[in-house]
Amino acid sequence: MTALNPENPVFVTYAIAAALMVLKVMGQGWMTVYRMMRSDSGLASPEDLQTGPLNRNPRPGQLEINDYVDRSRRMHRNDLENIPAFWAAGLLFMAVEPPLLLAQILMYGFVLARLAHAVAYVTKQMHEVRATFYTIGSVAVIAMALYVLAAVVS
Amino acid sequence: MTALNPENPVFVTYAIAAALMVLKVMGQGWMTVYRMMRSDSGLASPEDLQTGPLNRNPRPGQLEINDYVDRSRRMHRNDLENIPAFWAAGLLFMAVEPPLLLAQILMYGFVLARLAHAVAYVTKQMHEVRATFYTIGSVAVIAMALYVLAAVVS
Amino acid sequence: MTALNPENPVFVTYAIAAALMVLKVMGQGWMTVYRMMRSDSGLASPEDLQTGPLNRNPRPGQLEINDYVDRSRRMHRNDLENIPAFWAAGLLFMAVEPPLLLAQILMYGFVLARLAHAVAYVTKQMHEVRATFYTIGSVAVIAMALYVLAAVVS
Repeated sequence: MTALNPENPVFVTYAIAAALMVLKVMGQGWMTVYRMMRSDSGLASPEDLQTGPLNRNPRPGQLEINDYVDRSRRMHRNDLENIPAFWAAGLLFMAVEPPLLLAQILMYGFVLARLAHAVAYVTKQMHEVRATFYTIGSVAVIAMALYVLAAVVS
Repeated sequence: MTALNPENPVFVTYAIAAALMVLKVMGQGWMTVYRMMRSDSGLASPEDLQTGPLNRNPRPGQLEINDYVDRSRRMHRNDLENIPAFWAAGLLFMAVEPPLLLAQILMYGFVLARLAHAVAYVTKQMHEVRATFYTIGSVAVIAMALYVLAAVVS
Repeated sequence: MTALNPENPVFVTYAIAAALMVLKVMGQGWMTVYRMMRSDSGLASPEDLQTGPLNRNPRPGQLEINDYVDRSRRMHRNDLENIPAFWAAGLLFMAVEPPLLLAQILMYGFVLARLAHAVAYVTKQMHEVRATFYTIGSVAVIAMALYVLAAVVS
């Protein structure tokens, strides 16, 4: 059977998890935009200090780091450190035909761990809380990569 | 028909768009290198202050942020916040067999929006200009992810 | 033959290289965690200054940039600027059925160049050393993307 096909239940699992993670990454960009506009600060480039619809009252300091906006950028960076590796590992994992239940646990587990990580980050939970969810997501990706290596080199 | 195959016209669309975006991301790295060398500044690591072919006249301040070099790094970061999600969303989108015209609009639309975003960023256009192109690219990726979810959960 | 399949020797090459790069990216996150804990510094968020298992002796300055920890974050960022593009380019390259030997040279060459880049970065070699390995990896990815474009538009 072709792996990359909606008839394959592991593909369906991967497609749901990977598409949700696409929405998470893109949504994080929009959270940054929202927070930049709402706080009228945390801008990225010197030319953003010009007056316009996105900046009605330019003032010095708008380029300085602001935790409200920067928190969203740190969340985004944390996503980029984890989610593209999930897309790659999940695709390879699907191609080596794992048991469906294992795919569901690792893929949906990753999605839930990343969503919990985002909630912990945005609500400023203690480091230990978001570290726990980071770890679960990271272990799921590492497990898929090791499974793929074991499957193709054996 | 196998999705991941040059006989599939949606694959050809995806392959062209995704390969152009690979060249964009890698090219952005080379723009940073070019700007670092041309301005002799914006270096990343303390050990880069040693004398050598890439730094003939080391001096204090070469590790400080320099907008000429940092602009290229910000463009790169903006790429990383959007383009890997496009690679993932586009692959899944292709696998659920969308109409060719829709794939062409979303995929080539994404490529054109990202190229326009890069031109707006490098020429320091107002925030509103690059925000517009950012939005077009982001909406194309989000649309593909939603289409995938609708296709596999129905 | 289906490209995304363990019967395809180019897939096996891609799966080994891409899975090793997944482990590299995820491992870089763990190096950052290890260095943060070992040096008790380089924390990312204000709430990380609370007392807890990950921070037994909070003190001012733990949020400041510390080269020991930041070096790992810079390595991670450099990975993100290169490895997701490799995953995408390698997948497309595999789909257009290149000669196996060429795939092995470009894919294993990329992996070796990135591992050498990491060693050069972590041991603080001169800029020229890590720039050389960066270049080899970058050229491998660009070559795959150009090969894909040539294959699908011809």
